[in-house]
Amino acid sequence: MLKIKMYTSAMLLLRRCHSLTRFGPLNTQRHQVTPAVVSCAVRLWSSSSEDGGSYQRAHGPRWRHGLAGLLAGTGAVLAYGLHHHKAEQQDSSTVQTIKKTSAFPIISQEEVTTHRSLEHGIWVTFKGGVYDITEFVAMHPGGDKILLAAGGALEPFWALYAVHNQEHVLEMLSEYKVGELSAEDVKKQRAIKTSDPYSTEPERHPALHINNLKPFNAEPPPELLSDSFITPSAIFFKRNHLPVPQVDAASYQLHIEGLPGGVLTLSLEELKTRFPKHTITATLQCAGNRRSEMNKVKQVKGLNWGIAAISNATWGGARLRDVLLAAGYSPDVAQRAFHVQFEGLDKDVTGTTYGASIPLNKAVNEEGDVLLAYEMNGQDIPPDHGYPVRAVVPGTVGARNVKWLGKIIVSAEESSSHWQQNDYKGFAPGTDWDTVDFKSAPAIQELPIQSAITVPTDGAVVDRSSEEVTVKGYAWSGGGREVVRVDVSLDGGKTWQVAQMRSSEKGQAPGPSPPPGRAWAWKLWEVTAPLPAEAQELEIVCKAVDNSYNMQPDTVPPIWNLRGVLSNAWHRVKVEIREDDNEE
Amino acid sequence: MLKIKMYTSAMLLLRRCHSLTRFGPLNTQRHQVTPAVVSCAVRLWSSSSEDGGSYQRAHGPRWRHGLAGLLAGTGAVLAYGLHHHKAEQQDSSTVQTIKKTSAFPIISQEEVTTHRSLEHGIWVTFKGGVYDITEFVAMHPGGDKILLAAGGALEPFWALYAVHNQEHVLEMLSEYKVGELSAEDVKKQRAIKTSDPYSTEPERHPALHINNLKPFNAEPPPELLSDSFITPSAIFFKRNHLPVPQVDAASYQLHIEGLPGGVLTLSLEELKTRFPKHTITATLQCAGNRRSEMNKVKQVKGLNWGIAAISNATWGGARLRDVLLAAGYSPDVAQRAFHVQFEGLDKDVTGTTYGASIPLNKAVNEEGDVLLAYEMNGQDIPPDHGYPVRAVVPGTVGARNVKWLGKIIVSAEESSSHWQQNDYKGFAPGTDWDTVDFKSAPAIQELPIQSAITVPTDGAVVDRSSEEVTVKGYAWSGGGREVVRVDVSLDGGKTWQVAQMRSSEKGQAPGPSPPPGRAWAWKLWEVTAPLPAEAQELEIVCKAVDNSYNMQPDTVPPIWNLRGVLSNAWHRVKVEIREDDNEE
Repeated sequence: MLKIKMYTSAMLLLRRCHSLTRFGPLNTQRHQVTPAVVSCAVRLWSSSSEDGGSYQRAHGPRWRHGLAGLLAGTGAVLAYGLHHHKAEQQDSSTVQTIKKTSAFPIISQEEVTTHRSLEHGIWVTFKGGVYDITEFVAMHPGGDKILLAAGGALEPFWALYAVHNQEHVLEMLSEYKVGELSAEDVKKQRAIKTSDPYSTEPERHPALHINNLKPFNAEPPPELLSDSFITPSAIFFKRNHLPVPQVDAASYQLHIEGLPGGVLTLSLEELKTRFPKHTITATLQCAGNRRSEMNKVKQVKGLNWGIAAISNATWGGARLRDVLLAAGYSPDVAQRAFHVQFEGLDKDVTGTTYGASIPLNKAVNEEGDVLLAYEMNGQDIPPDHGYPVRAVVPGTVGARNVKWLGKIIVSAEESSSHWQQNDYKGFAPGTDWDTVDFKSAPAIQELPIQSAITVPTDGAVVDRSSEEVTVKGYAWSGGGREVVRVDVSLDGGKTWQVAQMRSSEKGQAPGPSPPPGRAWAWKLWEVTAPLPAEAQELEIVCKAVDNSYNMQPDTVPPIWNLRGVLSNAWHRVKVEIREDDNEE
Repeated sequence: MLKIKMYTSAMLLLRRCHSLTRFGPLNTQRHQVTPAVVSCAVRLWSSSSEDGGSYQRAHGPRWRHGLAGLLAGTGAVLAYGLHHHKAEQQDSSTVQTIKKTSAFPIISQEEVTTHRSLEHGIWVTFKGGVYDITEFVAMHPGGDKILLAAGGALEPFWALYAVHNQEHVLEMLSEYKVGELSAEDVKKQRAIKTSDPYSTEPERHPALHINNLKPFNAEPPPELLSDSFITPSAIFFKRNHLPVPQVDAASYQLHIEGLPGGVLTLSLEELKTRFPKHTITATLQCAGNRRSEMNKVKQVKGLNWGIAAISNATWGGARLRDVLLAAGYSPDVAQRAFHVQFEGLDKDVTGTTYGASIPLNKAVNEEGDVLLAYEMNGQDIPPDHGYPVRAVVPGTVGARNVKWLGKIIVSAEESSSHWQQNDYKGFAPGTDWDTVDFKSAPAIQELPIQSAITVPTDGAVVDRSSEEVTVKGYAWSGGGREVVRVDVSLDGGKTWQVAQMRSSEKGQAPGPSPPPGRAWAWKLWEVTAPLPAEAQELEIVCKAVDNSYNMQPDTVPPIWNLRGVLSNAWHRVKVEIREDDNEE
């Protein structure tokens, strides 16, 4: 697939370098890719974006609009950039003028169906129009999946990825129009009912702030988050990549592959009864938590999470270690296998499931505490969180805690899924979509030290008469590293005081300290401090320290990355102090 | 001991609060400590140091001089502060005037010997003088050890801790003079030859930059450090806390205690032959590496290390895990024991050995790779590095890698040593010596992400004609976390480029990647970049990222701590660009 994509991409650029005219509907000329072509492509891209600032300003609103709702997928920024570049070229092209004024030919579905390969072009239909999107394939934010619509209708795909229902997407599509679908074929298409795969999604708590509806992505209000040490499941942040699958617990099967014992298949009942139930309290955090702060520095690609894409729950289930042992795992296996892959039961229309992997040693280590969880906060795991079984990989980025778990594969290689290979990785601030090499960075597993202020919120007003201010928040670190201190500043980081931390519900005694390297749960913290006499505004800042003495970086720009992940700089909120009126 | 110390300290402060006259030689009055007294003490201290800036300016040079060479030990800053405070009070005291003009009485050694308790006062002799240091005990930077000299001569102690041989120390002592030792006793004292415990120390490489001679503490020049992936033993940084012990390999014994098998005693030969030899390449770093950068923000207590208190070597030895299993370790032990203590054979005159501990799970984990090493870089471990056997605890702060290992104790508690309990811990920047509670912070084990620039050095000059600049350095992270990226900036952190890293000697192929969580060795890195056309000066900055995506904090002040440990902010060097002359 990658090969095809590179081919298409290079094709596209080759044409530009050679100043070929824009493709016509029947232009199926294809060339072999050479390194020189790629280098030409890079030059081209550089020349169109060298003045990055003004380019972005000129295209800013549309660009941002396009990005805000985009589904995760490699190359979106690059795609939109290339598209704009193309559009600019077209403006001065006579071909464009001709096309605009010409009536579109009537095309049959039969004809459309013949254009389903790069060799013969990629055509699709949408609402009675026929589009040759061959050139767009390489720019598609969702990657190669677009090829699956080749020769057919876009509608069933767009029903899955609701992000397409935006005006600018339609605008882009319109530029590729090559004909009208015959009236007869349009009629036939309408007869095929397109069901919305999201129509059976569960009801959600009204307090949630929704970042994306389909797939569902939402976070709780920060002030609710720090109210409870254990986050109620209903407001636990939700990050789905695909529609929530409807899984029948009675017929549910979990398959474990890649071990000497052959494939082990377990029913839910077997998972519950054959293995001891193990309970841990663990915080999960999305790699994109606090992405909105990176967006303020420079637009990134991804859901615009606030500070609440993190929550803490008690999970109950079988230890993955125990299940792997039952499936034939022995230390010998570690000589040839290094990863444990998880496949979800959530899938797109093509049948591609969500997937991710973790290192084998995390999975089999007695102290790794990886669960095949069937309980969340003492109840069956809710549909949004992976009913009936999900992986809980404590200390590890949310993306590896695969929900609706269908298959476990012990393997020599990491998961080949998009989310393992081409997403959820960190890059240097200077790396852009035209230079990024996803192979050059490791998949995020353990997350770095993190903390944020939940109360007060940015822009809040405090009355001078209250004399003091109470600041609350959370702190957590990946890899089982315990948070040992949270420093809070009211003056933007000049002076600091140490917050009180708790690792239990307010008023309850904390449980025993976690063993070293197994501090999976966050800590909530609080500071009450007098309002500084002179200040009219407070810049409240927090930073946490874990027991490896790693600390949060001071500022966002040096950790900015094109995907907006790993946003863990000091958290800052500004609060206004309102002087009291002298009345009364 | 702690109780005694607190008692003395409180006594001292009680006197001040009650405006008692300065103690006379025979004043042995003692009171019970009450919280009110302690609070009074805090107030006193606060009042003398509230204007911290001007206080420090006024006493700056002497203060700094006093601190620079101080041996590690709790409370040094507090001690000197209290001492100055006392001196100020004395200036306006008539008692002082009287004392200055009075001739000192002749006192016999017999009389001195009666003053060896807090109840009867603590007297010592030094070069024929008799001193009542009762008040100074609580202020002594080296802690309670001073009590061991009670009733006798200071000389043997000062021979051990050469840091005392400074003018300001003698000055301080002179204020406590209460008499002259009888001529006869002076003669007797001279007859006792005081040998220098440092006289048998090994020869050292002349390239080393010596931070302290006795005990020996030295680091290599940075530019040598980045020359070799494996640091030659001769220039490997050296951090001794006590004199290097002379250990006879033939009679050497290692004792392993605290396990069901009883005490296991191993000779060097047995350690080498009964257990498989395991070899790892691991970087060791002193907690105080880069302390000098913290000193630039505000004076801290400790050796003024540059950026080279870090080195990388290949270590060979028995796995601690294997030895513990031979001594009777089984998983049951982990129900009652949580630490493994190491005791060195290096000791002070009182017989107190250097000691430290690590968590039991690090010691027994198959992936912990803790060694009882008898080889360094393929040869016997040199005397400065722990001959014949030292602990190598990869990923863990140097202080736990105990040298000249004599005893291993599996225990419920951490090591009770000063270095585990009251040193090598991190605190908030607002924590000062008058507020520090050593119990409130965990002993440093795993170290945070670190990197520094070795070439060019700060203040170097680059000729414009060279057109480019090459920047080199090292990067390492604790806990076996692999460094995955180093970013380098030439403009003080505004823009960044990614450095090339290597994990082998230059020109040699790198070995296989370390398994996850076992990246014990540093990486050396390099960037060659064109000199910016307009710049007259470069501010070169580096920052590293490990595979938990922890990053170095931007600046020093927010991570400043009173002990000057964990100094891992971005490293910065300034380089001047010299424009070429137009001649020729």
